[in-house]
Amino acid sequence: MSDNKIYLPESEIPTHWYNVIPDMPTPPAPYLGPDGNPIGAGAMEAIFPPAIIEQETSDQRWIPIPEPVREALALWRPAPLVRARRLEQALDTPARIYFKYEGGSPAGSHKPNSAVAQAYYNAEAGIKRLTTETGAGQWGSSLSLAGQMFGLDVRIYMVCISYQQKPYRRSMMETWGGEVIPSPSPYTQAGREALERDPDSRGSLGMAISEAVEEAASRGDTNYALGSVLNHVLLHQTVIGLEAKKQLAIAGDYPDVVFAPCGGGSNVGGIMFPFLADKAAGKDIRLVAVEPASCPTLTRGHYAYDYGDSVGLTPMMKMYTLGHDFMPPGIHAGGLRYHGDSALVSQLYHDQVLEAQSVQQIATFEAGVLFSRTQGIIPAPESAHAIRAAIDEALAAKEEGREKTILFTLSGHGHFDMSAYDRYFAGELEDMDYPSEALARARQSLPKVEG
Amino acid sequence: MSDNKIYLPESEIPTHWYNVIPDMPTPPAPYLGPDGNPIGAGAMEAIFPPAIIEQETSDQRWIPIPEPVREALALWRPAPLVRARRLEQALDTPARIYFKYEGGSPAGSHKPNSAVAQAYYNAEAGIKRLTTETGAGQWGSSLSLAGQMFGLDVRIYMVCISYQQKPYRRSMMETWGGEVIPSPSPYTQAGREALERDPDSRGSLGMAISEAVEEAASRGDTNYALGSVLNHVLLHQTVIGLEAKKQLAIAGDYPDVVFAPCGGGSNVGGIMFPFLADKAAGKDIRLVAVEPASCPTLTRGHYAYDYGDSVGLTPMMKMYTLGHDFMPPGIHAGGLRYHGDSALVSQLYHDQVLEAQSVQQIATFEAGVLFSRTQGIIPAPESAHAIRAAIDEALAAKEEGREKTILFTLSGHGHFDMSAYDRYFAGELEDMDYPSEALARARQSLPKVEG
Repeated sequence: MSDNKIYLPESEIPTHWYNVIPDMPTPPAPYLGPDGNPIGAGAMEAIFPPAIIEQETSDQRWIPIPEPVREALALWRPAPLVRARRLEQALDTPARIYFKYEGGSPAGSHKPNSAVAQAYYNAEAGIKRLTTETGAGQWGSSLSLAGQMFGLDVRIYMVCISYQQKPYRRSMMETWGGEVIPSPSPYTQAGREALERDPDSRGSLGMAISEAVEEAASRGDTNYALGSVLNHVLLHQTVIGLEAKKQLAIAGDYPDVVFAPCGGGSNVGGIMFPFLADKAAGKDIRLVAVEPASCPTLTRGHYAYDYGDSVGLTPMMKMYTLGHDFMPPGIHAGGLRYHGDSALVSQLYHDQVLEAQSVQQIATFEAGVLFSRTQGIIPAPESAHAIRAAIDEALAAKEEGREKTILFTLSGHGHFDMSAYDRYFAGELEDMDYPSEALARARQSLPKVEG
Repeated sequence: MSDNKIYLPESEIPTHWYNVIPDMPTPPAPYLGPDGNPIGAGAMEAIFPPAIIEQETSDQRWIPIPEPVREALALWRPAPLVRARRLEQALDTPARIYFKYEGGSPAGSHKPNSAVAQAYYNAEAGIKRLTTETGAGQWGSSLSLAGQMFGLDVRIYMVCISYQQKPYRRSMMETWGGEVIPSPSPYTQAGREALERDPDSRGSLGMAISEAVEEAASRGDTNYALGSVLNHVLLHQTVIGLEAKKQLAIAGDYPDVVFAPCGGGSNVGGIMFPFLADKAAGKDIRLVAVEPASCPTLTRGHYAYDYGDSVGLTPMMKMYTLGHDFMPPGIHAGGLRYHGDSALVSQLYHDQVLEAQSVQQIATFEAGVLFSRTQGIIPAPESAHAIRAAIDEALAAKEEGREKTILFTLSGHGHFDMSAYDRYFAGELEDMDYPSEALARARQSLPKVEG
């Protein structure tokens, strides 16, 4: 029996993260403050520890992973690389399909890869508490776990409607010692004002971010942590791609194409950045971000400066955006409902180093169910976007009658998303296109920036 | 960095199951039919395929695992053996604690180990459909997955109250293609009668078994599959202990004591039976089944012939029992709420080869939370019973100031049990003792058997 699951020993957990910035054809544009000028490190010191701020703009290609972070990662890493042979057989494709499985982490996704690093650096800096926001709960779970491992208290502002609808994600955070607060809350100025306007407010991710940042900025012992979008988060996620490269080498293979779901960009950065140097050196490899057709940031958005949050509290980042006030429809891949994208991913897409494609909701669930029935693992709806793209690629290879090596990230399991599968089986899901009018409206909403 | 997680390659999936019967000091007593005489193979043919019937009474020590079953197991096996170093550190114990993690299977527990074997043998025998019952949903999920892998339709009679309260387990079964029917149902005579008596019946495991067996017995293309208790199920689970022995050898260690949660006995058989031969050869090893104080089958029950189900439809088995009409209290470790126990486990406990201990509900959740906060994985409440016992053993080792090697099965994750953790944190859980009066009542309820 040949091995379809390739494990690495813990000693093979990467010793360094790969920083893509030195290898980018165009360096990323600076973050801008409210005055339109690049913000300095000082502006970030109120909410981030020095090591994170340094990583955000570092020009070092390799950044050492502290040993306590590697030891924390070792609870679940290296993550397996799996040859999806049963899926290949079901598709009757000559393609070889591999997936890097990140759902085996305690929190069930790739998110803890950055959470443990951020918790470590904050603890090192003498910080006692972290705040963050969470929607569906993946990131809040991950930071609760990480805080527990490094002795930090963690307060999570959870979008009120999710707090009510996803009680089990909340329980998970509490099991790891996190304090979960429905947002808007009476603990912050932003929350109190929102509750005054609407005592029955169901909250939003933008509001939860405002609360978490406000609390972190106003307390010396407290910092803020973000689960995607920012450069340091993508940096921490590169352990995914670094491991996958080693594992594919063991399998004697190399991908023709790599897929990852794309919301804020942490999956894309995580698996794809380590392959970029090969591509720059002339290797023929396609790197494809997969996003929902209803929230098609890369494939339809403007490349422009915009705010990272919905109310304009964050610095402005140059990125593909559907407009910071765009409210994505209520699709079940909550992690992909983001109006913008990582500045790094955006720049690389703009420079045609990365590609992007969008897929519809129903087709992603079809792919998720086929994957469940062949490979066993029930994927998170976010992950099913990459599966859909991989299946389509494998079917195209069959059509063309040629071999092809496909790699994708299975970023998380769907154990907390079963109600979405219910709705799929009940025929209640809808496909949704992004309306062209919305794009024109988005242009209007973009902040005015010189140059 | 030394490895705390020990993986084996897929080629090391056992090639044979270990059948404990030839190594038992006393052979297991035969199953008895309604007339008080041992039942023959013929009585089982209506619901089981020949290979399963043969395994139920085989005297062969090693039974080959068919290659398609090994390939199915390879989706998630070999399962990792993990050194729980962070738990050891939190306890400040000189003990070395290892756990065999079975929660990485697609269904999230050890149950698929037997499900894929049973599905395979039924498909080989030309059977097209399987029926089964499920309470909390672990076994129904596992059989749905296994049916999908071997091309069998699976109908699961799910206890009506669970069907309503555990919609996500139901969705999981449907995602793998299983048909889930709330029991009692209009599809069987037993169900129809129950609904006539009480149209609002919430069902019971006993009723669901009756429905599943009735349908299987009345249709030539349909068989029945059970997830614990029977000899062949425990046989299939021995892959757990066989792998664990190899992995401990790699770690250069050997257990002084092994713990597993005990309901019907499939965990106990799975991890402990492969260590029995060593014990028979004089090795100093303790094998300890851990059960809930509120359902203390081994530690408090009668050793006598009793029915396997609650209404007396099954053959009588000689086992430790609290009486087939005992209704265990509504503790959250649903998989341990069984009035009886495997005949093999019972005989071995009676012969003092296996030990048993009982633990209280609140203490198991305390242990589950400590484990979550140190090792990350949130355990199923059933598994937390073994964790509690392992922690107590490690604390005793600390007290005595001596090294000790502890092994336990972490039989499943708790992703579908978060409401139980909620209740624990809310202080709503209760400890419950088994009342002595109940034991006297149980004796009255036992079927009268000669000898």
